[in-house]
Amino acid sequence: MDSIASPRDVAGLAPEQVQQLADELRQRIIATVSRNGGHLAPSLGVVELTIALLTSFDADHDKVVWDVGHQAYAWKLLTGRAASFHTLRRGGGISGFPKMAESPYDHFGVGHSSTSISAALGMAMARDLAGGDNNVVAVIGDGSMTAGLAFEGLNQAGAMDRKLIVVLNDNEMSISKNVGALSLFLSRNLSKRWVRRMKKDMETFMRSIPGIGEDMLGYAKRSEHSLKGFFTPGMLFEAFGFNYIGPVNGHDVKALTRTFDMARTLDEPVLLHVLTRKGKGYAPAETNPTHFHGVGRFEPETGKAAKLADAPALPSFTDVFGETLCMLADEDKRVMAITAAMPEGTGTSCFCTRHPERFVDVGICEQHAVTFAAGLATQGLRPFVAIYSTFLQRSYDQVVHDVCIQNLPVVFCVDRAGLVGEDGPTHHGVFDISYLRHIPNMHILAPRDEAQLRHAMRTALALDGPVAVRYPRGVGTGAVLPPRGEVLPLGRGEVLKKGDGLAVIACGSRVAPALEAAERVAEESGRQVTVFDAVWVKPLPEAQLLELAATHDALLLIEENALAGGFTSAVLECLADHGALHGQAIRRLGVPDHFVEHGSQKELRAKLGLCVDGIEETLRAMLGLG
Amino acid sequence: MDSIASPRDVAGLAPEQVQQLADELRQRIIATVSRNGGHLAPSLGVVELTIALLTSFDADHDKVVWDVGHQAYAWKLLTGRAASFHTLRRGGGISGFPKMAESPYDHFGVGHSSTSISAALGMAMARDLAGGDNNVVAVIGDGSMTAGLAFEGLNQAGAMDRKLIVVLNDNEMSISKNVGALSLFLSRNLSKRWVRRMKKDMETFMRSIPGIGEDMLGYAKRSEHSLKGFFTPGMLFEAFGFNYIGPVNGHDVKALTRTFDMARTLDEPVLLHVLTRKGKGYAPAETNPTHFHGVGRFEPETGKAAKLADAPALPSFTDVFGETLCMLADEDKRVMAITAAMPEGTGTSCFCTRHPERFVDVGICEQHAVTFAAGLATQGLRPFVAIYSTFLQRSYDQVVHDVCIQNLPVVFCVDRAGLVGEDGPTHHGVFDISYLRHIPNMHILAPRDEAQLRHAMRTALALDGPVAVRYPRGVGTGAVLPPRGEVLPLGRGEVLKKGDGLAVIACGSRVAPALEAAERVAEESGRQVTVFDAVWVKPLPEAQLLELAATHDALLLIEENALAGGFTSAVLECLADHGALHGQAIRRLGVPDHFVEHGSQKELRAKLGLCVDGIEETLRAMLGLG
Repeated sequence: MDSIASPRDVAGLAPEQVQQLADELRQRIIATVSRNGGHLAPSLGVVELTIALLTSFDADHDKVVWDVGHQAYAWKLLTGRAASFHTLRRGGGISGFPKMAESPYDHFGVGHSSTSISAALGMAMARDLAGGDNNVVAVIGDGSMTAGLAFEGLNQAGAMDRKLIVVLNDNEMSISKNVGALSLFLSRNLSKRWVRRMKKDMETFMRSIPGIGEDMLGYAKRSEHSLKGFFTPGMLFEAFGFNYIGPVNGHDVKALTRTFDMARTLDEPVLLHVLTRKGKGYAPAETNPTHFHGVGRFEPETGKAAKLADAPALPSFTDVFGETLCMLADEDKRVMAITAAMPEGTGTSCFCTRHPERFVDVGICEQHAVTFAAGLATQGLRPFVAIYSTFLQRSYDQVVHDVCIQNLPVVFCVDRAGLVGEDGPTHHGVFDISYLRHIPNMHILAPRDEAQLRHAMRTALALDGPVAVRYPRGVGTGAVLPPRGEVLPLGRGEVLKKGDGLAVIACGSRVAPALEAAERVAEESGRQVTVFDAVWVKPLPEAQLLELAATHDALLLIEENALAGGFTSAVLECLADHGALHGQAIRRLGVPDHFVEHGSQKELRAKLGLCVDGIEETLRAMLGLG
Repeated sequence: MDSIASPRDVAGLAPEQVQQLADELRQRIIATVSRNGGHLAPSLGVVELTIALLTSFDADHDKVVWDVGHQAYAWKLLTGRAASFHTLRRGGGISGFPKMAESPYDHFGVGHSSTSISAALGMAMARDLAGGDNNVVAVIGDGSMTAGLAFEGLNQAGAMDRKLIVVLNDNEMSISKNVGALSLFLSRNLSKRWVRRMKKDMETFMRSIPGIGEDMLGYAKRSEHSLKGFFTPGMLFEAFGFNYIGPVNGHDVKALTRTFDMARTLDEPVLLHVLTRKGKGYAPAETNPTHFHGVGRFEPETGKAAKLADAPALPSFTDVFGETLCMLADEDKRVMAITAAMPEGTGTSCFCTRHPERFVDVGICEQHAVTFAAGLATQGLRPFVAIYSTFLQRSYDQVVHDVCIQNLPVVFCVDRAGLVGEDGPTHHGVFDISYLRHIPNMHILAPRDEAQLRHAMRTALALDGPVAVRYPRGVGTGAVLPPRGEVLPLGRGEVLKKGDGLAVIACGSRVAPALEAAERVAEESGRQVTVFDAVWVKPLPEAQLLELAATHDALLLIEENALAGGFTSAVLECLADHGALHGQAIRRLGVPDHFVEHGSQKELRAKLGLCVDGIEETLRAMLGLG
C-alpha cells in the first residue's frame, strides 16, 4: 500500500500485488476503525471493487460517485489519504464520507443515501454538453436502491440514454436487513408470483406456436430449473433502459476489471450488478454485519466493543425511547412503530420483537414512512415514526402535506437531534426545530433528560395531532426514570432555578449544562440567575416567557439547533409579538449559520460555546463578572 | 344526476342511466370550471372510472384514495357535493381537492402527487390489524407514478402482500408530456433494447432445449409479432409483487366494474391498468390537455380563455422569469433550465424551444431535479431549477445535503411563493423562507417587482453558491423592465420612502402594497413613515436594518410567508443579536400559524391584513391615528 503514490499506480499492479494490497487495505481499515469508530462492514465489502475501479478508470479524468459514502475508506486510502487516514472522523482529521472539499478525488460529497445516480447523470449530461469523453460511475448499494430518489434517477437515466455506469453493489442488506419487492427481485429470489405468472404467459405463447408448441410446453414444464434461469434480476433494469451486466463476483478484481473494461466501451447506460459480502475479510463483521455497519471503538482481535475507561453506565436516550415505546404499546393497542431501515439505530428492534405485528421497517424510504404513517393514523392508529433528525429532512413535504395539513396524530421521534459528532455535517441534526416549528398544527417537545423523554412520549400519545419529540445522540443525565411517565401540561415549561436580573431560557439537551453553569456562577460569585426549561418548543410556554421577560433585564437563550429559525428565534418572535421586548440585554447561543464539521460531540459543543464552560463564560460576560 | 341522493345510488343505475350520468357530470364539470377555473382535463378523464368505483365499491365502507386529487370533481359531485359544487375553489366554498375535513367520502386529503399508494397501504394495514374487510383503492396517474414516493409505496406494498387495489390511470401524460423509462414501459412502447435483450435470452433458453429447440427458435424469429405480445407492461408490476390486470378501457363502465368486481375477490395487491383520455368528452380539452390541465375561466362553447373585464395587460412574474432565463442562456453557455413536469407552469417552455440541449424536464421528481442539478453544478454549469414553492418542499433534504453543504451554484427559482389563491392549503407557498433561510451557504432574494426579478436573476447567476429567488403567482406591478438586469449589491436593501418615527420593513410582493399604504397615510395624515425594501432575505441588509432600528421607535415588519421562522423572524434575530432592540414598538404582518384555506389571492391577503388596506390599518394603529 505504501508504494501507491498516486491513484494511477493501482492500475499497474501484478495479481499477487493486488491481493497484498487488498489485505493491507483491510488491515488498515480494521485497525483505524477499531480506534476511531466508523463504518466498517460497508468499507470492508468493497475493497476489491475499489481496486478494480481504480484499475479500469482514471480517477483524474473519470468521475466516481459513491452512494451514501460509508464505504469509501479504501477509496480514501488509495487516493492520497493514506498518511492522514489515522485521523479518520476525528476533529480536524479526514471525514468519514467522501467530501469534495477534502480531495479532488471525492467527486461528489455524500452522507445520505440514494443520491448517486442523479448526481452522476448530471455529470454525464455536463460531459456531453462539453463534448468530453470521461466516464461517470455511480456505486450504489441494493439498500440505497429502494429509496425513491434512486428510482427517479434510474428512471430518467434510462430515458436519457447517456453513457453512464451504475454499479449496483448487492450485499443483500441495506443497513440491517433489506425490505421491499425490489430487494426480493435483486436477491435472486424472484417473486414466486411473478415467476408463476411469467410461466403462464410463456405457456400461452408456446401453445400459440402451431405444430411444436405442445412439445415445447411439455419440455418447459419438466425443466423448472432452466425456466427459472430465464428470469434474471437484470430484466428489471433492462426494462428501465439499462444494459444489464452481471452478476459479477465483487471480490474478484480480475473479473471486475474485465467487466468494467467492457462496460466502458458501451455508449449507453449500463447497470453492473456486483455481489459482495458486507464485512468481507473480518470474521466478526461477516458474522454480524448489522452491528459492524457503523461501530464505536472495538478490540480488533475479537471485535468486542472496547471498554471505555470512564464510560458512564447510563442508558442512552435511544434506549429509553425504545423501552418506553414498548411500554406504551403494551398498554395501548393503537401504538405502532415505524423505522426507515434503522431498527437498531432508532432503538425500535425490541419493539419489533415484542409487537411484530405493529412494527414496520419500510427500508430507506423516509418519505413513504411518513405518508404510510398518515394512512395508519386516518384509521385511528397511533404511529410513532422513529427517524433521525437529519433523515427526517427527507420527509419534510410529507410532514407538511400528509400529516400536518390533515392534523393527524403521528408522532415523530426525532433521534440524534443536535450535534451528532464524528459523522459530521451531513448527519448533524441541527435543523429540525427550524424546519418543523413553522408547520401549523405541529407540536414539538424537547425533553431535557431521559425521565422527561418518557413523560414527553406519553404526552405525545395523549395529544390529538402531530407531535415531534426531539432528543440527542448519547447517554442521558442519569435522571431517575418514572415508571409510567405523565402527560405534561401543554405549553408549560419549568423554572429549575430561581434568580434575578438574568434568566437563562433553554430547551432539550442544553438545559442540564445551562443549569450546571448557573450553579457554578452562583457558587463562585453569589449571583443567582434564573434557569428556565421551556420543555415545549411548540406551543411555547408563552405566559411564562412573558413573565420572565418582564421580570428580568437580561435573557440568555440557548438551544442545540440552528439559531436561524430555531427555538431561540421562536422565543424572540413570542416576545416581540406580545410587546415584551423592553430593551433587555439578549444573547443567543446555538448553532451558527455555517455547516459544523465533524469531531466529537464534546469538542464541537465546546467550540460553539454550548458546553458548561461556554455557557458559564457567556453568563459571566452578561453579568459583568471578570 | 339529481336523482343520486347517496353514493350508493350509483350502483343501482341501468346502463342507459350510466351514460346519462356521465354526460351530466361532464356538463356540470365543464360549466363550473369555465366559471371558477380548475383542473378540467384530469377530471373529465375519470368520469366513467368514478362511476365504476362507486358501482363496485361501497364508499361508506371501502376507502378510495385519489392521488394528487385534481381529478376528483366527479367524485365530489357523486358523494354529496352536487349542491355546493358551484362554489368549487371559491373562498368559503368546496375545495378543488379531496379534503378529509370537507367530507367523510374524501378518505385522504391531497394536492401534491404520488402519496396515494403509501397512504392506502397504511389504511390496508390498519384494516388488517383491526380484522376488517373493507377494500382500499388507490387511484394514481402514470405521471404520478414516476415520483420516487410512489415507487417506495409500490415496492413496499408488493413486499407486504396485503389486499390492496392500485388503479393506474394511464393517460400517457402527467401534467404535460411524460418522461422517463417507466413511461416508455407503460405506454406500450416497450424499450427496444429490452425487447431485444429478452429475445436474446429467450433464444438462449430455446437453444438449450434438446431436440425441438432449433425449430422453436426458427418459429420465434419468424413471429416477431407474437413475441412482442409476450412482453406486457404488466411484467414490471408483477415483478414488484402485484397481480397485474389490464389494460382496461377506462371509459367503459361495464368493463371497469367487471374488473373491479374481480379485483375485489383477490387477497393480494392488485394493479389495475386503466387507459383513459385526458379531457375526454370535451373537444378543446382533448385537443390540448396540457392547457386544460388547470385552467382559468373560459368560454365553455369554444374553450377560449374568458376575457376579464378589468384584466391588466401586465406580464406575470412567471413570464418575466422565463424570458429573462432565455436571455441569460443566450449570453452564458453555462445556464441550464430544469423543471419537474411543469414547463408551462414555470415559464420554461420558451427555454425548451430556444435551448433544448440545455433544458431538462425530469418529470414529477423534485428530489431528483435538485440532486441532478447539483451534479451539473459540480461540472461548472449553472442550473436554474424552476419549482413552485410548495413543491420545492419535496426537495428540502436535497437542497441541504447535495447543494448547500457543497456550496454549489444552483439557482432555485421559487415561483408561486406566497398565497396562491384557489388551490388552497396544499399549494400555498408560504413556508419557503422558513425552510430555506436556516440552511448555511444559501442566499435568498425576494424581488418586489418584475424589474427587480430580472436584476435578481442576473445576481443569482453572478453568485458563486446556492441562491433562491422567490416570486409570487400573478402579474407584476408594471415596473419597466431593464434590458439586461444588473447585479444587485449583496445584502443591501433599498429605502423607498424616507420618513421618521416608524419604519416599514418588507420584502418581495408585500413591498408595493406597503409603499402604497404608507403613501395613503402620508396623504391623509401628513405623517411620513419610512419604507424599506430588504431585497435580500439572506444575507439580510444588516447595516441598514441596524440603522433603521436605531433611528426609529416603531417597526412594522411585513412578509408573505409564515411568520414563524420567516423574513420578519430573521429581522428580529438580526436586531437581537446586534443588541439593537432598545424597546421599539414592533409589529409583524405575515401568514399566521394556521393553514390558510382556499379563496382568491385578493380575499386571502385581505383576510390576513396583507393588502394595502390591511397594512394601512396597522400603520394607522401604530401611529395612533383614528
